[in-house]
Amino acid sequence: MGSWCSLTTPRRPRRVRSPDLGAYTAGVGSLGEFGVIARLRRALPPARDERLIVGIGDDAAVWRVGAGFTIATTDTMVEGIHFRRESVEARDIGWKALATNISDIAAMGGVPAFALVTLCLPPSAAPEWLDELYAGLRECAEGYGVTVAGGDIVAAPVLAITIALTGEPSAWAADGMPLLLRRDGAQPGDVIAVTGALGGSAGGLRMLQDERADCEDARALAGRHVRPRPRVDAGKAAVAAGVRCGIDVSDGFVQDLGHICAASGSGAIVRVDDVPADPALTALFPDDARTLVCTGGEDYELVLVGPHAAIDATSAALAAPLRIVGEITDDPEHRVRVIDGGGNEVSFEEDGWDHLKIHPWVSR
Amino acid sequence: MGSWCSLTTPRRPRRVRSPDLGAYTAGVGSLGEFGVIARLRRALPPARDERLIVGIGDDAAVWRVGAGFTIATTDTMVEGIHFRRESVEARDIGWKALATNISDIAAMGGVPAFALVTLCLPPSAAPEWLDELYAGLRECAEGYGVTVAGGDIVAAPVLAITIALTGEPSAWAADGMPLLLRRDGAQPGDVIAVTGALGGSAGGLRMLQDERADCEDARALAGRHVRPRPRVDAGKAAVAAGVRCGIDVSDGFVQDLGHICAASGSGAIVRVDDVPADPALTALFPDDARTLVCTGGEDYELVLVGPHAAIDATSAALAAPLRIVGEITDDPEHRVRVIDGGGNEVSFEEDGWDHLKIHPWVSR
Repeated sequence: MGSWCSLTTPRRPRRVRSPDLGAYTAGVGSLGEFGVIARLRRALPPARDERLIVGIGDDAAVWRVGAGFTIATTDTMVEGIHFRRESVEARDIGWKALATNISDIAAMGGVPAFALVTLCLPPSAAPEWLDELYAGLRECAEGYGVTVAGGDIVAAPVLAITIALTGEPSAWAADGMPLLLRRDGAQPGDVIAVTGALGGSAGGLRMLQDERADCEDARALAGRHVRPRPRVDAGKAAVAAGVRCGIDVSDGFVQDLGHICAASGSGAIVRVDDVPADPALTALFPDDARTLVCTGGEDYELVLVGPHAAIDATSAALAAPLRIVGEITDDPEHRVRVIDGGGNEVSFEEDGWDHLKIHPWVSR
Repeated sequence: MGSWCSLTTPRRPRRVRSPDLGAYTAGVGSLGEFGVIARLRRALPPARDERLIVGIGDDAAVWRVGAGFTIATTDTMVEGIHFRRESVEARDIGWKALATNISDIAAMGGVPAFALVTLCLPPSAAPEWLDELYAGLRECAEGYGVTVAGGDIVAAPVLAITIALTGEPSAWAADGMPLLLRRDGAQPGDVIAVTGALGGSAGGLRMLQDERADCEDARALAGRHVRPRPRVDAGKAAVAAGVRCGIDVSDGFVQDLGHICAASGSGAIVRVDDVPADPALTALFPDDARTLVCTGGEDYELVLVGPHAAIDATSAALAAPLRIVGEITDDPEHRVRVIDGGGNEVSFEEDGWDHLKIHPWVSR
């Protein structure tokens, strides 16, 4: 889910007509995703519903339903932006469209349940292609216990798939409130851990773009890009072990950790040599591996932040241990400082994706 | 929400790549919306989750959350298909994108609560246009007690807004189960009633396309098209009064009533002269009013079906009475028969919209 933030005073809007998109030289693209989000904060009504527990600004929203709780998120994949049909199998697109949503629920410590699937379809799209898309969606739904409960089908000039997914918390406090992984739950002194290995998806995207998926490592990376495996298991283990802060790696590790720092009012220090890189990535892109690990995005692993003992207990409950990669600091500027083995700060051209500026399939 | 139906045996999918959309001469458009839906039925996994109360095939899905229940729906508006920016104010697009979803919740007898808003944005879109879109969304949200809890923002070559909306039932049976308006709840002998007046939205679309909104009646019709008022009040009154079947008029009255007949295994007879026409429609389109009333769609009034006494009790609870327009029959072919004052059957070229075949802004 986009990282929309909490709401402030609305401002008086002007009435504007826009007969031609191209006529605007200063469109929303020039503001970037986070500029648009800041603008939308001002336009939305303040959230007054007392049932809302977590609103705009986390991986998913959480609200009360009677005595229970719903966790809800939505994610979209647009052809030409998030995938190209000539490079990615329809079956993989169906899988990934649902998997990215499941990852948002996992990043709250929840368990996914029901999906609404919206298809924007060019009328010329092949029915057989659509069958394949649904076969991939089905595989993912069955693998993660998700039921498709409804949706919408509309004609559109471009193919897009939008899924809204709900789930439920996996653990509750003694007072009945849900135990969640929130972006604003980091405390100075907490350790930062990650599941699995990072950078594989970004490496896989490169392989798919270059059509070089002709060796074992290349196929492994491509698989990481098109078939992400959301870490519902790790999210559940974390909340059960007392971890209260987390995010999934969707935009890029450094940027996603930055969302935690911004929401928590903290800083972070990351030892770049400790961040686990996908082995196939290191083999195929030795020079760029560090950059792809830290900024590549779409790994859909979890970043978990909490007291050392809670992280250790989470790790002990999982088949593959977590890797501790840094600590939360009290930096008043809320920076994520990445340091190498010599203690020198490492910087990157981009910390991660801006969904209105960077189009991996278009611009790179 | 699209009228997806219940699920049958899956079939083995083939692997297909589609490098070029235009290369397909027999695309999904040739199958039509309902052909695609039938195809998707076969591709989706069977719904085994016992928490699911109403799945694919109604205005909204319903599932349990702990001891409570969620009603959920999703609807999309795509530029060039559902609106044109040169003819419709951004503020009205924002209103309508949410209102169509609220109408689905109303058509289940529910009360809306939380929305997730997805924006597909061309990077050249004007920020001021977006402010206006959100101002309209805000007006609608505040008017109907909806909280925007999250969403997603992505770049796309075409502007689209997808909203997923949840709500809760408004009444419960003694056993704690929700009282709902379901498409499959019609019984032979039930009467068919409608709220408000029909055809105004279709008339308004014509006025907007021709830019003839230069008199009181024309403005009234245009307002019906761009600012639909979902009937949450009527849905609530209906379930409280014992009505158990309903649908909103989104595709077109005859087609929507046909969905009830198909789901209920019944037929219907409608006295066309009793179907309330928007007064401005009759004034401006005297020759086409009957057709637009029966097939125009997007009125977002409710069709309520139930025992005469329950319909009367609903009517008595509302500021404007319902109009009884026909009865449910036991027609084994599940037809909707529309008859005029002389008892002659009236037919129409189209019963309503096919969202993959008919593009009101493009083809008409």
